[in-house]
Amino acid sequence: MTKTAAFIGGGVIGGGWAARFLLMGWDVRLFDPDPEAERKMGEVLANARRSLPGLSDTDLPAEGSLTLCETMSEAVDGATWIQESVPERLELKQKVYQTLQEHCDESAIIGSSTSGFKPSELQSTASRPEQIIVTHPFNPVYLLPLVEVVGTGANDPERLDRASEILTSIGMYPLRVRAEIDAHIADRFLEAVWREALWLIKDGIATTEEIDDAIRYGFGLRWAQMGLFETYRVAGGEAGMRHFISQFGPALSWPWTKLMDVPELTEELTDMIADQSDAQSGQYSIRELERARDNNLVSILRGLKAQDWGAGKILNAQDKRVSRIAETLDEVEDVSQPIKTIERAVPLDWTDYNGHMNEARYLQAFGDATDRFMLIVGCDAEYIQNGGSYFTVETHIRHLDEVHAGQTIRVDTQCIVGAGKKMHVFHRMWQGERLLATGEHMLIHVSLETRRPSEPGPQVAGPLTTVAKAHSALPLPDGAGSSVGVK
Amino acid sequence: MTKTAAFIGGGVIGGGWAARFLLMGWDVRLFDPDPEAERKMGEVLANARRSLPGLSDTDLPAEGSLTLCETMSEAVDGATWIQESVPERLELKQKVYQTLQEHCDESAIIGSSTSGFKPSELQSTASRPEQIIVTHPFNPVYLLPLVEVVGTGANDPERLDRASEILTSIGMYPLRVRAEIDAHIADRFLEAVWREALWLIKDGIATTEEIDDAIRYGFGLRWAQMGLFETYRVAGGEAGMRHFISQFGPALSWPWTKLMDVPELTEELTDMIADQSDAQSGQYSIRELERARDNNLVSILRGLKAQDWGAGKILNAQDKRVSRIAETLDEVEDVSQPIKTIERAVPLDWTDYNGHMNEARYLQAFGDATDRFMLIVGCDAEYIQNGGSYFTVETHIRHLDEVHAGQTIRVDTQCIVGAGKKMHVFHRMWQGERLLATGEHMLIHVSLETRRPSEPGPQVAGPLTTVAKAHSALPLPDGAGSSVGVK
Repeated sequence: MTKTAAFIGGGVIGGGWAARFLLMGWDVRLFDPDPEAERKMGEVLANARRSLPGLSDTDLPAEGSLTLCETMSEAVDGATWIQESVPERLELKQKVYQTLQEHCDESAIIGSSTSGFKPSELQSTASRPEQIIVTHPFNPVYLLPLVEVVGTGANDPERLDRASEILTSIGMYPLRVRAEIDAHIADRFLEAVWREALWLIKDGIATTEEIDDAIRYGFGLRWAQMGLFETYRVAGGEAGMRHFISQFGPALSWPWTKLMDVPELTEELTDMIADQSDAQSGQYSIRELERARDNNLVSILRGLKAQDWGAGKILNAQDKRVSRIAETLDEVEDVSQPIKTIERAVPLDWTDYNGHMNEARYLQAFGDATDRFMLIVGCDAEYIQNGGSYFTVETHIRHLDEVHAGQTIRVDTQCIVGAGKKMHVFHRMWQGERLLATGEHMLIHVSLETRRPSEPGPQVAGPLTTVAKAHSALPLPDGAGSSVGVK
Repeated sequence: MTKTAAFIGGGVIGGGWAARFLLMGWDVRLFDPDPEAERKMGEVLANARRSLPGLSDTDLPAEGSLTLCETMSEAVDGATWIQESVPERLELKQKVYQTLQEHCDESAIIGSSTSGFKPSELQSTASRPEQIIVTHPFNPVYLLPLVEVVGTGANDPERLDRASEILTSIGMYPLRVRAEIDAHIADRFLEAVWREALWLIKDGIATTEEIDDAIRYGFGLRWAQMGLFETYRVAGGEAGMRHFISQFGPALSWPWTKLMDVPELTEELTDMIADQSDAQSGQYSIRELERARDNNLVSILRGLKAQDWGAGKILNAQDKRVSRIAETLDEVEDVSQPIKTIERAVPLDWTDYNGHMNEARYLQAFGDATDRFMLIVGCDAEYIQNGGSYFTVETHIRHLDEVHAGQTIRVDTQCIVGAGKKMHVFHRMWQGERLLATGEHMLIHVSLETRRPSEPGPQVAGPLTTVAKAHSALPLPDGAGSSVGVK
């Protein structure tokens, strides 16, 4: 049976909530008096539709239905989850709960997106306080898993458990907060950093951009995977958390920040932290944590490289500076021989459960080799921008030997046919003198406007013909023209 | 000509610096009186060697040489870069500089890894203050690009520029800090968060693990790509930064953190922030920034999924909960027909400059389909753990049509041969009724110990034979057995 959720307030947060429930198969009712609500919801939903489904490696349930409601009573009718995301004014929220509770099911969960108020404050004027909890999400709600779940003694424990179950079922991580405090957990950190950042700007020490760079090129990359304490556990090196505190702890009493009230690092507090860290990460040695951290960082950084953003943009610029692979035909040393198109180490994130480079990464490397060959014959970013490109229509790979992370692979490329719309290339992948794989590929020149085959422009046809002619004297490579299972 | 760098102190930070310079082709001299220095350096270097080279999409220069030196004078002889990473005691650092300056080249750069001291403090007792600057890196130094570069009026500007150039040349991002303050920029944030975290633990609100989860499942993922201000610019929605400050700003005066001294949010400060944010991100619309953010988040999250870590682990658990694809032969509806092995949306990070799913991702999907087929015939994680698996030896892909991010693809798998060591499968990839591609694959059963072909165990041979027999009645698929360029 399709479940129904109601959303009171459809801004960036409310709309993000609604989009997540909808894409996870719930029927969604939205109440928002903003005359622009429908347009705004549509834009959040468009963003969610393009990003959330592909995050999953399996098909999501069929989308639920979206209904914009004229009244709160209409929205909450039959809803098992009600999410309040109205502006951060306590009286307003309390008034909304009064209306909701007049119309909603007694068993429904009323979650509040509040980033600052304690659940006891939200409950204080309610007719059924047990129904109201804090479920504080993070923007974009349709992608980030964290929800802080905070209740009080007034909530029935069963309802808090049910809230956690529902949030888990839509792909989120309900973090049950042990005790209510203003701003829960995460926003206390965000506030602390925000205040510090304001001082830096006010005092002329750094700009917004410099502050962002100081975060996203450094500790931001660590926090995305391990957070604060596990990162520091690793940083403590072989001696772990206790060592870290003894090194870093004293700095607490130095006049570094403008925000100064500091808990005393007693033996007791040190023990508490070290013990909690053991419970959290003690199943891994420091060496294992270092390697997990590095695997994660390589995965994150390579992901950002593919997007050419943040730290990934810096890495791409560095690659361009140090690459010794030809970019133009003039830079190719000997056109009569297969052309070197790849030379690189196998990244950590290219290996799989068999302990070697995954088959798809062979094609990634061959695809990169094809891209470089296209660049060499003049099919560069500007040419593609102007509407011409090559599409691969057929590929034949022979996997001849294994290769492992960190080993250096090299690809050389022989042009078998380079005439008219056709580009038929043969890649050989080597580690030293060891032939690892061959890749035979047929590409067709296309117009990116019509998506149909077309003749290449002269700036590509010319150099391609030159290479094809020079390579026509080479013997047909071993394995070319063969099919699967045939020797 | 190979350049020489000297490292004074070889712990986690000094060793990380040395490893980065070494892998970028510099000759490295290390001075560290710790009797364990060689072993510790070897361990950091092993970590760097496994992770850094593959981060690059091009071959790095040949590694330089590593020399462990008995004295500082030996280490700095002929070095153009000298990096001091001794413990955070001002007198110790000042004493080290005196020794270094007696022996090193006057033109050499002396960088300090200090996280807390101002360069003027480091310079105050030096014979040549102009030579000493702060170059503060972040652990692991061999992977994270950020270096805070801080000088004083005593430094010649040429030397600061040269430092930035050298750091850029080894793949780092030199952030020139405008004015010296205690703890530079990033560590002020780390300190602020650390203090807040200590309060939360001391007050029993959260454990180290809960705090880490509050970071890495939420804002940590945002900070890895955009930092603080660009994230908030997007969060402000269509109205941007000024709107965000007006919403979030008032919370500053609430009693949220224990750390309370707050700059007044005057009109002037608001303007300063909004103007700086425009200069930083004004070239993108909010809509463009949202999409860039979502592309980055999907890339980061999918990277973490592949590592089964942090937020990626949560996503994998969710996939397992909601997947409707068979995991065992018993769950297959009709064994006489090709078996559905993939049903999923095309992720945002699977598309390329041609605006469609990249060719390597077709093989990734086919590889995932093969993995699922292996699972169905009993080659599961436990079987692989016990030393048996299949390796792909040959692949033939026909790309028949394009597909775009967000569209749902489906793969069905026909077993052509499943006997002895051989598994010959044929995948068809569909979007609705549209055939997008076919993948023909020959796999051989191997022993993961010998890495040689071997007969599968009965728990795999049995189900595989069942499927192969059932599928033997199916016609040979169109395109099976063909080779590149042959119709």
